[in-house]
Amino acid sequence: MALANPAVQPAAAVAPFGSAVGLSCRECGQTYDLGPSYACLECFGPLEVSYDFGGVSREAIEAGPANIWRYRDLLPVPADVADKPNLAPGWTRLVRARNLGKELGLRSLHVKDDSGNPTHSFKDRVVAIALEAARTFGYTTLSCSSTGNLAGAVTAAAARAGLRACVFIPADLEQAKIVMASVYGGDLVGIEGSYDEVNRFCSELIGDPLGEGWGFVNVNLRTYYAEGSKTLAYEIAEQLGWRLPDQIVIPVASGSQLTKIDKGFRELIKLGLVEEKPYRIFAAQAAGCAPVSSAYKAGHEVVQPVRPDTIAKSLAIGNPADGPYVLDIVRRTGGAVEDVTDAEVVDAMRLLARTEGIFAETAGGVTVGVLRKLTEAGVLDPDAETVVLNTGDGLKTLDAVAEFARPTAVIRPSVDAFRAAFDDRG
Amino acid sequence: MALANPAVQPAAAVAPFGSAVGLSCRECGQTYDLGPSYACLECFGPLEVSYDFGGVSREAIEAGPANIWRYRDLLPVPADVADKPNLAPGWTRLVRARNLGKELGLRSLHVKDDSGNPTHSFKDRVVAIALEAARTFGYTTLSCSSTGNLAGAVTAAAARAGLRACVFIPADLEQAKIVMASVYGGDLVGIEGSYDEVNRFCSELIGDPLGEGWGFVNVNLRTYYAEGSKTLAYEIAEQLGWRLPDQIVIPVASGSQLTKIDKGFRELIKLGLVEEKPYRIFAAQAAGCAPVSSAYKAGHEVVQPVRPDTIAKSLAIGNPADGPYVLDIVRRTGGAVEDVTDAEVVDAMRLLARTEGIFAETAGGVTVGVLRKLTEAGVLDPDAETVVLNTGDGLKTLDAVAEFARPTAVIRPSVDAFRAAFDDRG
Ligand SMILES: [Zn+2]
Ligand SMILES: [Zn+2]
Repeated sequence: MALANPAVQPAAAVAPFGSAVGLSCRECGQTYDLGPSYACLECFGPLEVSYDFGGVSREAIEAGPANIWRYRDLLPVPADVADKPNLAPGWTRLVRARNLGKELGLRSLHVKDDSGNPTHSFKDRVVAIALEAARTFGYTTLSCSSTGNLAGAVTAAAARAGLRACVFIPADLEQAKIVMASVYGGDLVGIEGSYDEVNRFCSELIGDPLGEGWGFVNVNLRTYYAEGSKTLAYEIAEQLGWRLPDQIVIPVASGSQLTKIDKGFRELIKLGLVEEKPYRIFAAQAAGCAPVSSAYKAGHEVVQPVRPDTIAKSLAIGNPADGPYVLDIVRRTGGAVEDVTDAEVVDAMRLLARTEGIFAETAGGVTVGVLRKLTEAGVLDPDAETVVLNTGDGLKTLDAVAEFARPTAVIRPSVDAFRAAFDDRG
Repeated sequence: MALANPAVQPAAAVAPFGSAVGLSCRECGQTYDLGPSYACLECFGPLEVSYDFGGVSREAIEAGPANIWRYRDLLPVPADVADKPNLAPGWTRLVRARNLGKELGLRSLHVKDDSGNPTHSFKDRVVAIALEAARTFGYTTLSCSSTGNLAGAVTAAAARAGLRACVFIPADLEQAKIVMASVYGGDLVGIEGSYDEVNRFCSELIGDPLGEGWGFVNVNLRTYYAEGSKTLAYEIAEQLGWRLPDQIVIPVASGSQLTKIDKGFRELIKLGLVEEKPYRIFAAQAAGCAPVSSAYKAGHEVVQPVRPDTIAKSLAIGNPADGPYVLDIVRRTGGAVEDVTDAEVVDAMRLLARTEGIFAETAGGVTVGVLRKLTEAGVLDPDAETVVLNTGDGLKTLDAVAEFARPTAVIRPSVDAFRAAFDDRG
């Protein structure tokens, strides 16, 4: 019998997807091996990652890094993910919003502020997971269809990981998002059309030889990508002291983020990391792109696509893939879907800035606007512990507030000039 | 003998300045009580906070919050500072920059990326300390002279703390900085003149009845404010595993930040929190505003003021108050001062973005540009552990890179159009 030479024994392979064990169809339950699959072969339904978590303790999580990798055991990533080149997003601030709560009449309000991520939106979370999957599947180009924030998150992550990037956006985006999507290198392609047209184009490109070896984070890597949003749920619960909030207001673009926050909360309960308790999920849209809100108010279970027209461009998805699941979750948890006008969005951005010192993107104006509207309507419980999400950064949507954000006065550098200017103002 | 009634005993007063015990003049050593003083009555020299630290352990710090208040025992703030409404900045990423290091030929390089702070610059650190002092001294208006980032940090902090804000900037700043300085409310006053003129105006205003009750964070609160920069030193050392770097590249505007990072390193050594070792401090300026660099190269000990003309507006201080101290420290530690042109600044911003996925402000282009220049010149040791600071956010200085950050192509949403566009490009 030959003895193995310890010096040449292969190192134990690191499981590339950690505790994930397979994929399953959200519609029909059909199961699949972990692979670059994103739609059920039986029913074309979306696939979800399933796990065999084993035991996960609060202590193990708390001993982890101050980014999403503290939850690596709950994500489809290898155990050594924190050592690989990625943007290490997450562990953003949960801000106790006493001033805003007082103004709105909410006793206990927190803002989960994802503008602190490396490229200043929550998209860094989902891209970080998709990047690991892309590496595992051997993709050499990282790509996406994007309403803006995602393109910057993808090109930045690709730069750091040493992958090629080629990303697609509607050509009429805000300048800040265009700069942010191209400054990291790679190719940025503007598409003459809406986000929904960009998205259809990308699906077409995946089937073309040109798209070979391309990982589209939100198309063929979507199953993995989407899991990144669970980290918002984990962080909120941990930052509240391992407790679920009573009510949470979440923006809806494709709807994926909301469904994964719900999934994250349920996982925490199942793992015994938080106490089981009811929570209500509220979905926020802009009136100019409110297909889910319209369906909710009409009592429908399907979502009729719309053509978006709103300043909240990062939420301007007229045909939201996860719209029906959003309706399910909101109804199951006793929440609601509401929408606000562009003027209400701007008002809410300014309200959040002047009460809490948080400068949110238009998408944050949507959630805070809906928070206000639902509080005033008596739909939100003023005594319940409430969390509202800000998923992006005001610096990317400057035009929304530019007319309200100007110098009070422009003067010569003298106290007399200052006195005169202030006297003029009474 | 009357027995004290425990129920009516006053609670032990929280020391408003924590372990700080007094102020001392940096020039003549004269000591003063803790108060709203900022210049020595004997010699007009700047005052510094002195402390009686007692014991401070790594464990106590590591058990603290993921923001600058983990170092509260090393700062002039009350022990309960984390419970007060402030922006809780800090604990930003220290990014292992393997790609950039490889490109420049540096074996071990890290980027300390302060763009993740609440208003996306390092100024949140210094303002957080000044805010506590303002509260203690009973100031009701928070103010500053600013090259842009500081104005946003002050107005955001004032909004959250419920103070009035009135801030002063040169009228010709970038739009993003103007919006950011006014969106949080309060008064934003544009001054027709350079930063140095804004600064002189503020000193004049403090002596005027109009300025009564005003805390100018970087004038009459400067002694406290400046201490906030020490947290950059603490974080870098802790994030390196409680070790000082061998070499560090720091931008110079007023020079205060550099002097306080040096102070922070020395405190860590004195407290036994890191091992004593030599470290070299390198100072970076833009060629269009390089008074300290010019003085260094000429072998001078004084700094001749200049009129700034550079895209690195956040560093455009022509008459840097702490310039001579920067020269002292650089010479004492075996470092150097260097400057780079605006074109080199833009190149460096793009280099950092495409190698590490970090989109820095022009000030970050200055430090990375100087890092590159000093490495190429053989001044920096390629084998030494090196840290370079990015103190701000690329979204605030978009124009600097806008001409290089555009879509590769704009096409109709079809694979044929994509193929044609890419074929055209060869
Ligand atoms: Zn199926
Ligand atoms: Zn003195």
